[in-house]
Amino acid sequence: MKYAIVGAGAIGLFYGSKLVQSGAEVHFLFHTDYNHVKTNGLQIESVLGNFSLNNVNAYSDAKQMPKCDVVLVCLKTTQNHLLPQLLAPIVNQNSTIVLIQNGLNQEQIVAQHFATQNIVGAMAFICSNKIGAGHIRHLDYGKLTLGIFRGQTNDMQQLSSDLQNAGIETEITPDLNKARWKKLVWNIPFNGLCVALNTTTDQLMQNTYTHTLVYDLMCETIAAANACGCNIKPDFADKMMHNTDQMKPYLPSMRLDFDNHRQMEIQAIYAEPINTSFQVGFDMKKTKMLMQQLQFIQASYMQ
Amino acid sequence: MKYAIVGAGAIGLFYGSKLVQSGAEVHFLFHTDYNHVKTNGLQIESVLGNFSLNNVNAYSDAKQMPKCDVVLVCLKTTQNHLLPQLLAPIVNQNSTIVLIQNGLNQEQIVAQHFATQNIVGAMAFICSNKIGAGHIRHLDYGKLTLGIFRGQTNDMQQLSSDLQNAGIETEITPDLNKARWKKLVWNIPFNGLCVALNTTTDQLMQNTYTHTLVYDLMCETIAAANACGCNIKPDFADKMMHNTDQMKPYLPSMRLDFDNHRQMEIQAIYAEPINTSFQVGFDMKKTKMLMQQLQFIQASYMQ
Repeated sequence: MKYAIVGAGAIGLFYGSKLVQSGAEVHFLFHTDYNHVKTNGLQIESVLGNFSLNNVNAYSDAKQMPKCDVVLVCLKTTQNHLLPQLLAPIVNQNSTIVLIQNGLNQEQIVAQHFATQNIVGAMAFICSNKIGAGHIRHLDYGKLTLGIFRGQTNDMQQLSSDLQNAGIETEITPDLNKARWKKLVWNIPFNGLCVALNTTTDQLMQNTYTHTLVYDLMCETIAAANACGCNIKPDFADKMMHNTDQMKPYLPSMRLDFDNHRQMEIQAIYAEPINTSFQVGFDMKKTKMLMQQLQFIQASYMQ
Repeated sequence: MKYAIVGAGAIGLFYGSKLVQSGAEVHFLFHTDYNHVKTNGLQIESVLGNFSLNNVNAYSDAKQMPKCDVVLVCLKTTQNHLLPQLLAPIVNQNSTIVLIQNGLNQEQIVAQHFATQNIVGAMAFICSNKIGAGHIRHLDYGKLTLGIFRGQTNDMQQLSSDLQNAGIETEITPDLNKARWKKLVWNIPFNGLCVALNTTTDQLMQNTYTHTLVYDLMCETIAAANACGCNIKPDFADKMMHNTDQMKPYLPSMRLDFDNHRQMEIQAIYAEPINTSFQVGFDMKKTKMLMQQLQFIQASYMQ
């Protein structure tokens, strides 16, 4: 089994280095950090134990990489327009492309460009931040949920097994679409409100007004998901509220993007769910309002 | 005719000094600016012409003031809990209390404390800022719309006539409730969004996403008003959008309150319309979301 990691940030470096720990052959595609990693390797600070990796299979150009059985795409969805060019040299006809990404409908977009490959969607339930070149800090959680979008792939089971051997919890879901919507139930309120109100998850939970607003947005997301045929139970919102109460104060990925004046994943996390549910007659009114605010905020710092 | 001005800020000083210009007897109640005004008088910079007033009838204590025929209440609604105490020494049984304030339902609250007096609601369509002690800058507009809440008052006509003599446009509306809701159609989107997104009216109009959001909030407010029996035509939102396009960039009063870490008029402008329409079965979903955000923001700078 040959693995490729495309997008070596907080998520890609975590799962990639864990696969190396389990004995797998892993090829990492780097952008700005290539020279640093070639010289200094990777540093992983993790609640599961710190470690570092030297002699990493690091590349600065996808065309130098070998064909891989499984390609883990860990880029932000805002970079998905690059995937046709980045993935073409790495995949063969039977490769499995795994999108470890937020939001909705990204598998469809990749599927249009890669007609024969297996396509898997994956959701990382993890608190992990990149704190320097080739250096990440894994704060909490780590579970990876996988689901087939297209194809019949044994390689997904192998990936799951290899991660489990490295101490990572994995789950294979029979309903990728439902799992993606369930992740949105958390991502839609917390990513957007942490940017719009320039705050953190714990502050939103402590204020009685935003506590209600978070819950309202969760319920709206569940209603939209169910209009799209997902059959998520209403008490899932209560579970997510309870889980968030147990979490340490956390800056969601969109807040980090905002703080660093990077493009936010507004399309994948907001526009796609809003448009998909609108097509079946459901109007995500509050989610749409949050998206409009995020677009205004992003326009204030990006061209 | 004796006039009293309670709340000598940007609005109270403008209309009060215009009444003085028209020859009326006006008594001003000041809070922090009393000593300054007693010594230096009032400075009015206005698009209608600059002027200053010396020998102002200024008071620091309502109990020193004479009984007045017409009391113009120009406090922020956040100070309305002070009105029973402030107005009692100034009014007689036949006085007319005029609330020049934003929002909804404030006349009801005052009516509970003043059982026999005439009560008038008024809306100032004016861009006027206080720029120093006893010193205001009137940038644009100035029209005052008046409507009876309780009683039969000739003094309201006299007030209207005196203001007109001073060059101020006035209008007497037969439907105060409808007029209050029509003002909310502008106040609900612009006051709140200028705080939540830390911006100005022109920026909200220029961005395509917030342009749509402003319009959505206007339409929601019109629908709520009509659920309360107001019969506002849907194209009123289009008129308000057009009017705002013609305006100079403007900081609404709530944005000034936010900038100066003062309490915002969330109760009068948001909670009252939301609760009033909810009682007749209309859910102002987006307006409620904006209110929740404003409450979170206010809690971040006030105890």
